[in-house]
Amino acid sequence: MPNKLKTAWQAGKATVNGWAAIPSGFAAEMYSRAGWDSVTVDMQHGIQDYLSCVSCFQGMQPSGVVPMVRVPWNEPGIIGKVLDAGAYGIICPMINTEAEAKAFVQYGKYPPRGTRSNGPIRAAVYGEAGAYQTTANDEILMIPMIETKKAIDNIGAILDVPGIDAIYIGPSDLSFSLGKTPKLDVEDDEIFKIYEMLLKETGKRNIAAGIHCGVPAYAKRMIKMGFKLVTIANDVGIMLNAAKAAVTETKS
Amino acid sequence: MPNKLKTAWQAGKATVNGWAAIPSGFAAEMYSRAGWDSVTVDMQHGIQDYLSCVSCFQGMQPSGVVPMVRVPWNEPGIIGKVLDAGAYGIICPMINTEAEAKAFVQYGKYPPRGTRSNGPIRAAVYGEAGAYQTTANDEILMIPMIETKKAIDNIGAILDVPGIDAIYIGPSDLSFSLGKTPKLDVEDDEIFKIYEMLLKETGKRNIAAGIHCGVPAYAKRMIKMGFKLVTIANDVGIMLNAAKAAVTETKS
Amino acid sequence: MPNKLKTAWQAGKATVNGWAAIPSGFAAEMYSRAGWDSVTVDMQHGIQDYLSCVSCFQGMQPSGVVPMVRVPWNEPGIIGKVLDAGAYGIICPMINTEAEAKAFVQYGKYPPRGTRSNGPIRAAVYGEAGAYQTTANDEILMIPMIETKKAIDNIGAILDVPGIDAIYIGPSDLSFSLGKTPKLDVEDDEIFKIYEMLLKETGKRNIAAGIHCGVPAYAKRMIKMGFKLVTIANDVGIMLNAAKAAVTETKS
Amino acid sequence: MPNKLKTAWQAGKATVNGWAAIPSGFAAEMYSRAGWDSVTVDMQHGIQDYLSCVSCFQGMQPSGVVPMVRVPWNEPGIIGKVLDAGAYGIICPMINTEAEAKAFVQYGKYPPRGTRSNGPIRAAVYGEAGAYQTTANDEILMIPMIETKKAIDNIGAILDVPGIDAIYIGPSDLSFSLGKTPKLDVEDDEIFKIYEMLLKETGKRNIAAGIHCGVPAYAKRMIKMGFKLVTIANDVGIMLNAAKAAVTETKS
Amino acid sequence: MPNKLKTAWQAGKATVNGWAAIPSGFAAEMYSRAGWDSVTVDMQHGIQDYLSCVSCFQGMQPSGVVPMVRVPWNEPGIIGKVLDAGAYGIICPMINTEAEAKAFVQYGKYPPRGTRSNGPIRAAVYGEAGAYQTTANDEILMIPMIETKKAIDNIGAILDVPGIDAIYIGPSDLSFSLGKTPKLDVEDDEIFKIYEMLLKETGKRNIAAGIHCGVPAYAKRMIKMGFKLVTIANDVGIMLNAAKAAVTETKS
Amino acid sequence: MPNKLKTAWQAGKATVNGWAAIPSGFAAEMYSRAGWDSVTVDMQHGIQDYLSCVSCFQGMQPSGVVPMVRVPWNEPGIIGKVLDAGAYGIICPMINTEAEAKAFVQYGKYPPRGTRSNGPIRAAVYGEAGAYQTTANDEILMIPMIETKKAIDNIGAILDVPGIDAIYIGPSDLSFSLGKTPKLDVEDDEIFKIYEMLLKETGKRNIAAGIHCGVPAYAKRMIKMGFKLVTIANDVGIMLNAAKAAVTETKS
Repeated sequence: MPNKLKTAWQAGKATVNGWAAIPSGFAAEMYSRAGWDSVTVDMQHGIQDYLSCVSCFQGMQPSGVVPMVRVPWNEPGIIGKVLDAGAYGIICPMINTEAEAKAFVQYGKYPPRGTRSNGPIRAAVYGEAGAYQTTANDEILMIPMIETKKAIDNIGAILDVPGIDAIYIGPSDLSFSLGKTPKLDVEDDEIFKIYEMLLKETGKRNIAAGIHCGVPAYAKRMIKMGFKLVTIANDVGIMLNAAKAAVTETKS
Repeated sequence: MPNKLKTAWQAGKATVNGWAAIPSGFAAEMYSRAGWDSVTVDMQHGIQDYLSCVSCFQGMQPSGVVPMVRVPWNEPGIIGKVLDAGAYGIICPMINTEAEAKAFVQYGKYPPRGTRSNGPIRAAVYGEAGAYQTTANDEILMIPMIETKKAIDNIGAILDVPGIDAIYIGPSDLSFSLGKTPKLDVEDDEIFKIYEMLLKETGKRNIAAGIHCGVPAYAKRMIKMGFKLVTIANDVGIMLNAAKAAVTETKS
Repeated sequence: MPNKLKTAWQAGKATVNGWAAIPSGFAAEMYSRAGWDSVTVDMQHGIQDYLSCVSCFQGMQPSGVVPMVRVPWNEPGIIGKVLDAGAYGIICPMINTEAEAKAFVQYGKYPPRGTRSNGPIRAAVYGEAGAYQTTANDEILMIPMIETKKAIDNIGAILDVPGIDAIYIGPSDLSFSLGKTPKLDVEDDEIFKIYEMLLKETGKRNIAAGIHCGVPAYAKRMIKMGFKLVTIANDVGIMLNAAKAAVTETKS
Repeated sequence: MPNKLKTAWQAGKATVNGWAAIPSGFAAEMYSRAGWDSVTVDMQHGIQDYLSCVSCFQGMQPSGVVPMVRVPWNEPGIIGKVLDAGAYGIICPMINTEAEAKAFVQYGKYPPRGTRSNGPIRAAVYGEAGAYQTTANDEILMIPMIETKKAIDNIGAILDVPGIDAIYIGPSDLSFSLGKTPKLDVEDDEIFKIYEMLLKETGKRNIAAGIHCGVPAYAKRMIKMGFKLVTIANDVGIMLNAAKAAVTETKS
Repeated sequence: MPNKLKTAWQAGKATVNGWAAIPSGFAAEMYSRAGWDSVTVDMQHGIQDYLSCVSCFQGMQPSGVVPMVRVPWNEPGIIGKVLDAGAYGIICPMINTEAEAKAFVQYGKYPPRGTRSNGPIRAAVYGEAGAYQTTANDEILMIPMIETKKAIDNIGAILDVPGIDAIYIGPSDLSFSLGKTPKLDVEDDEIFKIYEMLLKETGKRNIAAGIHCGVPAYAKRMIKMGFKLVTIANDVGIMLNAAKAAVTETKS
Repeated sequence: MPNKLKTAWQAGKATVNGWAAIPSGFAAEMYSRAGWDSVTVDMQHGIQDYLSCVSCFQGMQPSGVVPMVRVPWNEPGIIGKVLDAGAYGIICPMINTEAEAKAFVQYGKYPPRGTRSNGPIRAAVYGEAGAYQTTANDEILMIPMIETKKAIDNIGAILDVPGIDAIYIGPSDLSFSLGKTPKLDVEDDEIFKIYEMLLKETGKRNIAAGIHCGVPAYAKRMIKMGFKLVTIANDVGIMLNAAKAAVTETKS
């Protein structure tokens, strides 16, 4: 199964990513039908664990979205497990140094490019028998989050690590790290300059840049700015905001 | 714990009801914070069973919404179980005759008004020790769904059954039963006449009328028409529509 | 696997029964090790459903207690399912008439004594291959609850139904039905007379009498009075009371 | 989504059905990939409930098998729920009379052919928006089990009930009902005569006949005999037998 | 939401802590109503994981107890996840060195005091919108366990790490580490001297001292000795002991 | 509870191990009855997490198999948790150096041999009260996986670490690491030479050698070659292969 995100990015197209925080295969099934190119199960800040991630993957499979995971941390056990469960992309929080980036890539790649252990119990199901192990290193996206001042300082060395397909900006942690109020959809010149620098540095290495957004209008601006992977809020936030609007309108 | 819906209706106010189809206590917790007066766990058409209903009740409790259930059918086992779990209102599908209405009320009331068995394992937690059993018969809402031609034909006898607090219209089943296409938010004179008849018949018996709606604008119209309990879609439908809109806007 | 309760009763001994309301195989595993002769998973008023019952059965198996279930209602689907899961006794609420008693027994017995369907997926595991179906009708206890005035009025006809091994008194529902405050461990002459009548009527038919109790001292009195099956509170109530006592003592 | 079983039967072809007793979406996902035409989640004798059925349906969807359910009993609540969850066929145990057959069909059909309530929360996902309700009555298979002497006696009246697509023989219950040892894959002339009668009676009404088998060789014979739907054991039985054989061979 | 434990300690009061090992939101809901000041979900030795912890937090919220977690290990992924789920205190096992203590504090604090990532999906729900991130560093208790000889040797350096609110003694591991039999409620002069040293060292730094106890009488002694946080057994131990006592009394 | 694997190996006997990838206590219960000496819950490549492992342990307990776990990674939190849940053996992936081997052993042993924390919440249930802690260090098997070129290079130093009871070969990862196609049941002289070396090196240190196999015939050969612990496929693979064979035979 070729990775549709990779194909899109190589064709210069931006992709829109959903974010699943609700630990329910049914919720993920329905949510995945909204037109997303990919849906990421958020095991870091979402109410998700490994088995709920598997259920969400099962629920979202018929929709054809690319299944991705944000892991809780840069730890080989969980990275291996979600890959075996069928993740076609891993977003990893808090990659701040070259060493962390190298470790991250290594956890996600089969030998000789890494140390991932063989056993793709659900992942192998997607394609031809035996084909998974020969294509996984190429098709699965390794996406470190760039979300601290330290990462910005080390950005060249991080991006030079072979095997990084994209970066993903966490705007609220980046703001926090810079001494600002943590929030999404920032309007801040210092941060915009960082975004531009990141787009330039990734661009010249043919690495895609992604960013977590709060609302569609901002996500659209980010695409125009050059980002190839934009996320809009998460399932539960979208539900709650829409529900609040519905109640307010009804009661008005 | 006095039932806030009952209080509102007695004061002539309409209430807005949420509808929980996602079997996740976390999803229900967040969804319940949208401003609803009550949230109904849908065990008939929602992806819910008894234990997921309990989780949803736990999740929604801090929000202060009135916890209700739509049971799958007019069956004493499940009606007793969800009441023991803390339901303050039961919506029961397909009540078409006086006998069905009597059975329904009887399943939900302690003696001497009914045959509900004593054992409110979670329900008793809401209030004073020992107080639950003396107030449950008065505070818990028994709400038959009126959603077939047969029920319309029998409406007087159904509404005369003591213990009915409200009725709840299922527009799509009612349409189906009348040979029309099943849908919410109908625009159909024959059906509007039925609504008016139901508002009149319930009104003269001091019974509230409720209706399942699809969008806020229609729910608002129904309140103006005299309905005291309106529901807007369900959690998963609201989420999916909002997600579709977000993707569409971002990709536009 | 011969039923240890049956053996004990035939030897004139009383048995002590635990009551599992917590839907956790781990909680049931630990609770079952307290010395009970049997543990009943309460699917009526406990926070239990079918799959949690199976988990509790798995948890309690090494302890050697007789696994029983109180079903939510006298309904053939759930009675068949919990028997297939390995229940060695069924306590059924609200058996008020001979017809209800006959139906109940029939749901629990294989042909020719009843209409239970064959498929003891876990139950067959307890003993020799193929032996289950030839012994189940004799070893599995069918125990109607006698807990209403109507049942008392019909007691002779109910007890004459072949296949009833024991009755089980629900004191709080019985009190409710008689117009009294519902509670366990009643001190009430009218009710004690009913208990004596029930002990006499069951005794002459070689049927055991059981009763739901709140505290050990009362359960002990009931054994002296002639009851062969006594239950003491439930898992969650015992835990909460002991926890309250521990906190109070520590804070004193 | 046209029902592939129906299409096959109309073309005179037999279909092979899997039987899922393990309550795990992952187990169902893998099991469904074995080449079955359909997989039936067994909610009667399997360790399955409603939510595990939904998980299994999600797991088996990519395989393309027709998702079916054996319900625990002929009860409208659960029949409605599993249809809404996406079942394309319902096998119902213990249909013994014309009245039971009529009730069963009615529970599964939308008006005007029945009284099923509208709300296909997962089911509607399989096809075009709005198309489900107009095709469900035709595409969803209603399959009563014929498994008692009483049903055999009433077979003409049962088969004449409009809306029955197939029957399904439970050989062990049928044997039990006839005073024989309950088992699958029977070799018994009396029972073979019943099978022939059932094939003849169903054949002349264009109703398919199905049967639960234990091993492939017997299932193959049944196909030759004229059965159009054969099941081979269940997931857990197949696993256990294969595991026993593997251990035995290794230890030999 | 100000942390009630912190307030109590600052007022010189001791607090009594419950310990939840049963993975059930319902069990936690009931247990939390026993009068505890806080309840700690034990993810190290309890039968708990991340999602059961979330369910327990939902169950215990209406009781008003302070929700705490003992994490399985000093690992940033799980510390972040339980904080996001709403933990107001983290007890971390086996903190033996200054470096481990610094890492632990850093994982639990937002910048600039630490490296916790922003995304308090449930935690933010407790208070005002946006307020969580500005108060979390002050309100959330970071509590290393002191339970080895190595930790005792390093105690000064550990306690000097900024951000430690309390320590928590694990008596059985401490005994083990000192070559003694592991148990709670020790009566051992060597260990009592350690307790006194720990009370003195924590006291002069305005850090609270906590200890895991087995029975109320011992917990009470520990409060008199100067401990500000005492735990009494756990939910399942309290249940099992009380159940054993009830059975024994009934059978006596 | 003495460890039956250890006893067998000391008597020179080989043991056959099952491998549980399905996260269902029921599936594990049935699977464990196939004649295995031990069953390993695979938390690395199986669809298992901590709570499903506990359920599987509960399910398999009556069968008497030795309960083991393959942990996802060499991490002290999860090793402690599964031991507390009752594991009698830990298989740990990717032990490549002496330091990793030492850390692994230390995580699994109580003081003074290691740093495991005391709290065997389920594990203590298997035997005499208080006996667990005095026997666990001797009875619980610590089994590093040898599955990379690096581990082969370091084999002497790894095997010299005190406390290693057995090694376990992962043939597909070993093949991968050597630049070959990853698969089970290899026929490759270079790898057979490694097996012989490992058998020799373990043999002279009285350490058992184990290997993951795909089919019984190969497992049998490995026993003849000198391996004392052989695994045959896993539960889901055995089920799927047997199901495919059944469908194929039926359709032939």
